[in-house]
Amino acid sequence: MSDNPTPLSPDDVALFTRWWFAANYLSVAQIYLLANPLLREPLKREHVKPRLLGHWGTTPGLNFLYLHLNRIIRQQDRSILFIAGPGHGAPGVVASTYLEGTYTEYFPDVTQDVPGLDRLVKQFSFPGGIPSHAAATTPGSIHEGGELGYSLSHAYGAVLDNPDLIVACVVGDGEAETGPLATSWHGNKFLDPKTSGAVLPILHLNGYKIANPTILARIPEEELIALFRGYGYAPILVEGHDPAIMHQKMAAAMDQAFADIDAIQKDARTGGTEAERPVWPMIIMRTPKGWTGPKTVDGQRAEGYWRSHQVPFSDMDKPGHLELLSEWLSSYRPDDLFDENGTLRPEIRALAPEGDRRMSANPHANGGALKRPLRLPDLEPYAIDVQSPGKTTGESTRVLGAWLRDVMKENLASRNFRVLSPDENNSNRLNAVLDVTGRAWEAETVDYDDHLAPDGHVMEILSEHTCQGWLEGYLLTGRHGLFSCYEAFIHIVDSMVNQHAKWLKTAQEVPWRRPIASLNYLLTSHVWRQDHNGFSHQDPGFIDHVINKKADIARVYLPPDANTLLVVAKHCLESWDRINVIVAGKQPEPQWLSLDAAIRHCAQGIGIWEWASNDRGDVPDVVMACAGDVPTLETLAAVSLLRKHVPDLKVRVVNVVDLMTLESKRQHPHGLDDALFDSLFTPDKPVIFAFHGYPQLIHKLIYKRENARNFHVHGFREEGTTTTPFDMTVRNELDRFHLVLNVIRRVPKLAERAAYATQAIHDKLVEHRLYVTRHGEDMPEIRDWSWT
Amino acid sequence: MSDNPTPLSPDDVALFTRWWFAANYLSVAQIYLLANPLLREPLKREHVKPRLLGHWGTTPGLNFLYLHLNRIIRQQDRSILFIAGPGHGAPGVVASTYLEGTYTEYFPDVTQDVPGLDRLVKQFSFPGGIPSHAAATTPGSIHEGGELGYSLSHAYGAVLDNPDLIVACVVGDGEAETGPLATSWHGNKFLDPKTSGAVLPILHLNGYKIANPTILARIPEEELIALFRGYGYAPILVEGHDPAIMHQKMAAAMDQAFADIDAIQKDARTGGTEAERPVWPMIIMRTPKGWTGPKTVDGQRAEGYWRSHQVPFSDMDKPGHLELLSEWLSSYRPDDLFDENGTLRPEIRALAPEGDRRMSANPHANGGALKRPLRLPDLEPYAIDVQSPGKTTGESTRVLGAWLRDVMKENLASRNFRVLSPDENNSNRLNAVLDVTGRAWEAETVDYDDHLAPDGHVMEILSEHTCQGWLEGYLLTGRHGLFSCYEAFIHIVDSMVNQHAKWLKTAQEVPWRRPIASLNYLLTSHVWRQDHNGFSHQDPGFIDHVINKKADIARVYLPPDANTLLVVAKHCLESWDRINVIVAGKQPEPQWLSLDAAIRHCAQGIGIWEWASNDRGDVPDVVMACAGDVPTLETLAAVSLLRKHVPDLKVRVVNVVDLMTLESKRQHPHGLDDALFDSLFTPDKPVIFAFHGYPQLIHKLIYKRENARNFHVHGFREEGTTTTPFDMTVRNELDRFHLVLNVIRRVPKLAERAAYATQAIHDKLVEHRLYVTRHGEDMPEIRDWSWT
Repeated sequence: MSDNPTPLSPDDVALFTRWWFAANYLSVAQIYLLANPLLREPLKREHVKPRLLGHWGTTPGLNFLYLHLNRIIRQQDRSILFIAGPGHGAPGVVASTYLEGTYTEYFPDVTQDVPGLDRLVKQFSFPGGIPSHAAATTPGSIHEGGELGYSLSHAYGAVLDNPDLIVACVVGDGEAETGPLATSWHGNKFLDPKTSGAVLPILHLNGYKIANPTILARIPEEELIALFRGYGYAPILVEGHDPAIMHQKMAAAMDQAFADIDAIQKDARTGGTEAERPVWPMIIMRTPKGWTGPKTVDGQRAEGYWRSHQVPFSDMDKPGHLELLSEWLSSYRPDDLFDENGTLRPEIRALAPEGDRRMSANPHANGGALKRPLRLPDLEPYAIDVQSPGKTTGESTRVLGAWLRDVMKENLASRNFRVLSPDENNSNRLNAVLDVTGRAWEAETVDYDDHLAPDGHVMEILSEHTCQGWLEGYLLTGRHGLFSCYEAFIHIVDSMVNQHAKWLKTAQEVPWRRPIASLNYLLTSHVWRQDHNGFSHQDPGFIDHVINKKADIARVYLPPDANTLLVVAKHCLESWDRINVIVAGKQPEPQWLSLDAAIRHCAQGIGIWEWASNDRGDVPDVVMACAGDVPTLETLAAVSLLRKHVPDLKVRVVNVVDLMTLESKRQHPHGLDDALFDSLFTPDKPVIFAFHGYPQLIHKLIYKRENARNFHVHGFREEGTTTTPFDMTVRNELDRFHLVLNVIRRVPKLAERAAYATQAIHDKLVEHRLYVTRHGEDMPEIRDWSWT
Repeated sequence: MSDNPTPLSPDDVALFTRWWFAANYLSVAQIYLLANPLLREPLKREHVKPRLLGHWGTTPGLNFLYLHLNRIIRQQDRSILFIAGPGHGAPGVVASTYLEGTYTEYFPDVTQDVPGLDRLVKQFSFPGGIPSHAAATTPGSIHEGGELGYSLSHAYGAVLDNPDLIVACVVGDGEAETGPLATSWHGNKFLDPKTSGAVLPILHLNGYKIANPTILARIPEEELIALFRGYGYAPILVEGHDPAIMHQKMAAAMDQAFADIDAIQKDARTGGTEAERPVWPMIIMRTPKGWTGPKTVDGQRAEGYWRSHQVPFSDMDKPGHLELLSEWLSSYRPDDLFDENGTLRPEIRALAPEGDRRMSANPHANGGALKRPLRLPDLEPYAIDVQSPGKTTGESTRVLGAWLRDVMKENLASRNFRVLSPDENNSNRLNAVLDVTGRAWEAETVDYDDHLAPDGHVMEILSEHTCQGWLEGYLLTGRHGLFSCYEAFIHIVDSMVNQHAKWLKTAQEVPWRRPIASLNYLLTSHVWRQDHNGFSHQDPGFIDHVINKKADIARVYLPPDANTLLVVAKHCLESWDRINVIVAGKQPEPQWLSLDAAIRHCAQGIGIWEWASNDRGDVPDVVMACAGDVPTLETLAAVSLLRKHVPDLKVRVVNVVDLMTLESKRQHPHGLDDALFDSLFTPDKPVIFAFHGYPQLIHKLIYKRENARNFHVHGFREEGTTTTPFDMTVRNELDRFHLVLNVIRRVPKLAERAAYATQAIHDKLVEHRLYVTRHGEDMPEIRDWSWT
């Protein structure tokens, strides 16, 4: 089968061309037409949209590929998901899903007749209609096509643990220039052909971006081939523009590609021997940009040029443009495609697969519907036994690691949970997970390798982008995961987080989309404990980034110790449609709450720590608030100092685990109502707030609160270097001494002590600095301090 | 020369090994020792640092390469800059720069004797000392080695317009997995061999990351070679571990690589014909991780394994560890390297180049010292003639484009200005620049190409990462530039901005670093006018990200029209050591200020627009504040409505160009003092603030202000889709009607009208929505509205 260069009969070719023309016709119609969708009356100015929006250039290529993938599905009864990397080509994706009937099933008013076509063409890129990119509204899509770079990592994420799924992933040659895409080709080194599905990358060499040629279209063919062989693929070239010839070439290429995939999978799934990493096929399709569009517009080159990127010509009042559009549309012979009713002619419709086999109806594309909850072990056996606050020491993420190991174990058979990290799993102290699964690895191995396994469910590549893309693909197809990362470097995926948040928001508004598992981040190796790695590794700003997302979606948790981390992590793994950010420490730290206390504390998300407070239900003189493990430690150390030196001061300690409780209830569903907020923070007493991140973030959250003006926030002031842990807090004035000093300054009745305290604390800090620069570590009284 | 496989004499090899041992010795000493730097007394526990920090794994490879580059410099008298992609290998970079004397010149207390060595070893990764990564403190470095991925784009940026410079850029095989690095190999398609210098990439196949093997070390050699041929390079492999053999291999490889570079440059610079894109050489060096370190530690593999990544063994109280360290250090025979004084022996020292030829002293690495101001044309000829506010229409970025064209023209001979963009230069309406220069392009061309030129000074690649990396490399070597980008997608480089901001802050603290030109962003195609592209293209959060950086560094400008944009842009191009973010529109919009008025307004950064206000020096009933072009338009439209319907209301209009004026003077150098702030915004009147970005950002900036509680901010609420421009503002309640409604609600004397106004505005918005969903564009009265 795979070596027949002309697999199609002449009749097939004619029929294929008609489908393709139908898809192209509807694509152009969506971009241009407001009415008169089948040109049943002569085209007039008022049939054309006032604002012409959309991307034609990539569309005919997408339509061509969609059609040929449908041929494979029909002939070979396969489960294929379509990812349009050039997602701007939504007119094509929408057209194809309409032709195969799914669109009408999802959107019943877009019927298979002239009135339905009328709605179809009008709604595109039109207010109240659908966006101009493939998006959550697009049947069969798990990929938003607005920002470029993530199609291939989404594809690899989707096929993990889905052995029968093949994702046909079209990569645009523009997108291929982005960094995230350029490294995502290496996904083939992490894909187990035995237990996971396959990705068929299709590089679409369209030649142009918005206004420039693309790099990959302008290198010699031998370089192009070498590049993809170097990435580990066997490229199949399909090049040309004559549809009759191209149909044959593409059919033969698809036959070969799928036969190769079958051979690889069969070999892996039936062979007893450890096979070498397979060389998966890929297709490189080189066709003119805006293929079948107008050759020239106003005397200037259009087809095969960047001028076809978006709308090849607009300004319909310009002489000839209306005629040009009419000719262009007519060139597809709409009456040959749609019957008098406006319904696609049955012989063309017959080219589409049936039911769930249609790519637009593939169940994996609506992963929420396939999602099964994780089996989550009870926390109790993993919790640290905290008899009394501050007496026990523990490494929060290591404790979490033990529980995650058993989450992994409990769900291994379901194959629906993965832990991802940019080569930091062990550094982040989640090593225990490797007791029950390996690190996914399909590349070469040596006998002293450490926990590498083709089927490993820990995914590590030194690319935050790829981790994020894999995880998104995995979640969007109905599974669960956790991404652990150094706090500073999670900013690398800021823009991907934006796009995922937008997807979630949009998907929640699409009735047939089912909720997917939350995107869970564990940020550790955080700003306060990157003293050894220095300034480049010190940045707590991801929180700031995430809380700009819709309140329905963003959650930020700052568990102060191991048991609260356990409780928070379990909650996040049970949640859906959220972006959960957990920031937690990995270093040995005092433990504050027993598991029961942690459960109660996390249920509120915020609360008074009575055992650390001495206001005994009275109005305190000062509220010491804290969020984050290091700020909590420094706050309690400050409270110790205050108790010792100012025993009559009434101090209340409030700890915040769920950052969004601080925001107004009107702004965030987790926000405390004002009465409760005031009962915690008082309406008028000074609040000395020790915060994990940039201090102004707290001011931003609480600006609507009665007591806002009395909040004095200590946090990261962008002062860092290679130093000791405690010196990091001193440089940013988050340390116990600066907290004490601020209390003394803010509490009126302590005013007379301010001068003395200032001097004493200054002397103490000088003493500490001298010790540190001499010994290279913090003073013993700082290191060994514990709450009493 | 280039085909001699053993270019070194046996004496050379012996001497080279001694230099290499000296560098390795000092690297290990920096990581481990607190004192006794030359092991002149038996090693004791107290000679070892209490906390052991640093990365040994990559270091011997860096030292090896540094030495061999020095050989080339000495023999061929070249200007070479060294970029250590694996910047964690700072112990090596510092050791090499110390051995060649530069370190002592920059840090005179680190002398070339035992006391100097004492300081050298102690300061490394030690409080008050130097960071563990190559950084601004490192002589010869333009690259911070903390976050990975940007070495090669920095290298390409540095050699642009520096025809005599060669950057030897070591790329770690860990870093090579990142997206930004994976695409930056394509820099060779944008490098003109005639007018720019050369990059020699050296891929260091070290084999391991923190805890995993690297991808590129675990693919077959034929794939590895194919990959880099595909990227357009001619790879030269150097593989092994025996120093004697490796010195010969590396010397031969370097000879060949530099001869190839010479041949390419000679051909390009003397040949009359249009040459094909050259295939530049690169070196792939495969050596064991932690080369020459301990083979095993506690019975476990160390050299050639991930356990060598950082400190191969710590816990010096463990039996045998102190002896192991002593043996390891002694294996380099320190007494054979340093004389009794502790000075490097002269025959070894002679391997270093002299003066500026030392890579650590290369003037390009301290680009601020080479920087010459741009020649900036007067703005007047480019300004829009604004006789009366709101009567003229203009496209701000197109106006700027004309001025930028002449900035480009005036500085073309100096070759020190580039404009960069991810394929958006024309979309952002800066086309005019192409009248005087082309788009840099060295790949294949066709005869109908549009402004492509090998020597073009507009750089376009569909990779924000690469644009940013090129620009950083260009600025750090003393030149100027402007990066124009769609606002939403600039988040792609969030993390790079962090690192550049950290570099600038650190560099300002390094006495011999001279200020470099500012990193200037022009963000256009912004959130309010991406109505056509839809939700994925709508994100104003980059401002939030940038203002978390140090106040000395971050600046944000929101010019409301073309003339203010001109003034702001000129200011930014004249500034240094800043990150300037300019957000400006590209669509036709009303123009408010004449050039003179714009100059006055921008000098203050904020001000009352008297012509739009009717408080006439009196206390206003309400302050209408605005920042950004669309918010300014909506504010003025709201003021029009108020004037018409509530003529007795005293309204003051305040426009903000320089966002940081809002912050307290104590927090930001541009912050207004409180008295001036209150004189603009009043201490107690309602302020209805229409803001370009997320509303809470304003609250975050003003929380210290007296009138903070009366600020009611309208901005982007993360509501977007494909719609009309005005509907975007309605969805986010930034439109004129919602602004009016809020005025009526907040001004006590209008309270009685609130119910009526609410109903009227509701009706108006329903009418508008109906119009929009019918016609696909805004109502004529919205589109054609103009200030009167």
